Amino acid sequence: MRALIFDLDGTLIDTVYAHVFAWQRALREAGMPIDGWKIHRRIGMSGGLFTRAVAREIGRPLIDDEAEAIQRRHGEIFREILVERRPLPGAIALLRELRQAGIPHGIATSGRRPEIDASLDALEVGPSMVVVARGDVLRAKPEPDLFLAASQRLNVPAGDCYAVGDAVWDLLAARRAGMLSVGLLSGGYGEDELTRAGAFRVYRDAAELHDSLDELGILLRGA
Amino acid sequence: MRALIFDLDGTLIDTVYAHVFAWQRALREAGMPIDGWKIHRRIGMSGGLFTRAVAREIGRPLIDDEAEAIQRRHGEIFREILVERRPLPGAIALLRELRQAGIPHGIATSGRRPEIDASLDALEVGPSMVVVARGDVLRAKPEPDLFLAASQRLNVPAGDCYAVGDAVWDLLAARRAGMLSVGLLSGGYGEDELTRAGAFRVYRDAAELHDSLDELGILLRGA
Repeated sequence: MRALIFDLDGTLIDTVYAHVFAWQRALREAGMPIDGWKIHRRIGMSGGLFTRAVAREIGRPLIDDEAEAIQRRHGEIFREILVERRPLPGAIALLRELRQAGIPHGIATSGRRPEIDASLDALEVGPSMVVVARGDVLRAKPEPDLFLAASQRLNVPAGDCYAVGDAVWDLLAARRAGMLSVGLLSGGYGEDELTRAGAFRVYRDAAELHDSLDELGILLRGA
Repeated sequence: MRALIFDLDGTLIDTVYAHVFAWQRALREAGMPIDGWKIHRRIGMSGGLFTRAVAREIGRPLIDDEAEAIQRRHGEIFREILVERRPLPGAIALLRELRQAGIPHGIATSGRRPEIDASLDALEVGPSMVVVARGDVLRAKPEPDLFLAASQRLNVPAGDCYAVGDAVWDLLAARRAGMLSVGLLSGGYGEDELTRAGAFRVYRDAAELHDSLDELGILLRGA
């Protein structure tokens, strides 16, 4: 295996619970109260699928204007409540070491620019980092497009890439992209949920993944 | 089986994600950033254990004043962000039916009065409901005291009670109280986490539990 492709929210940055809270409040304000746990389990899927799931919960389709207004309000609340983007334990050090060791790696996220820019800044990755975001592909996770675009940008065949994520959507997208996947518990899923969705290995967070790179057959130079 | 004893947050009321967010912000303000998922998995345990877990994460013991200040700030943020307490799907109807059918039932929560009062109001349970809260016992979950006190108040032996909860702390406390337990996914744990912690059955939420009372050997009058 030659490359690592990372999800962003819940995998490298501790934003999942703020996203859940912001969605829950935006939906409630729009008269669509939805259980927190159901929102949590849908973080990281494409906005279109998320909207369809909301429609099923409230029992009627959302018109485009409603969906856009809720998405905009979610963004407002999210920026208001999350004063800083906090990298998850080990994330900065892992990315730095991959960079220094010359191991191809990138980020593939269902998030959008410019919303993700503060997260990338917090990870100290710089402009040379390969980042594929929602606006760069036609379909987000669990479709494979984000991961496939990242592997093309890295010039590494999909079969030689690991996809690393905290949500079942990452793991399903990885499987459809023909990649092995690694699950992290740092987004709040249970270990078994990630294993059942196809994770080849499950670690607590980026720090434990960093300590376990040899289990994945990724050797750092000089190691 | 003759009685049902319910946890409150995440089991009957949709408050777990607001608690996670409020704890995370209160801790961050105090200079103790802690991952959201680690807070999530500790909601529902006693405040003393929670404080000890925080101390382990930040690598030093908390003095009593610090712990109290953080707890107070958590309460402030929680009340500020959670405008209303929203009963989880099926919770009000289930409690109403148990009341009407004369099946003994109560609530046993690690939460405190007066913080839990708004949740009890939202559940429309009235003053005759048996409620055992943190202040009523010496030790909270995962100690069995809350569930045991509820079974005494109901005058039903512990072995004839089901404990219903969304967190592994409920299920551990139930086992130590000699009760069978039922897990609900509505607090955001994975099914396997609840099963491994000893849940006899796992349902999505109170609504599915309501539809499944016969699987638990609890027969409503006239059913």
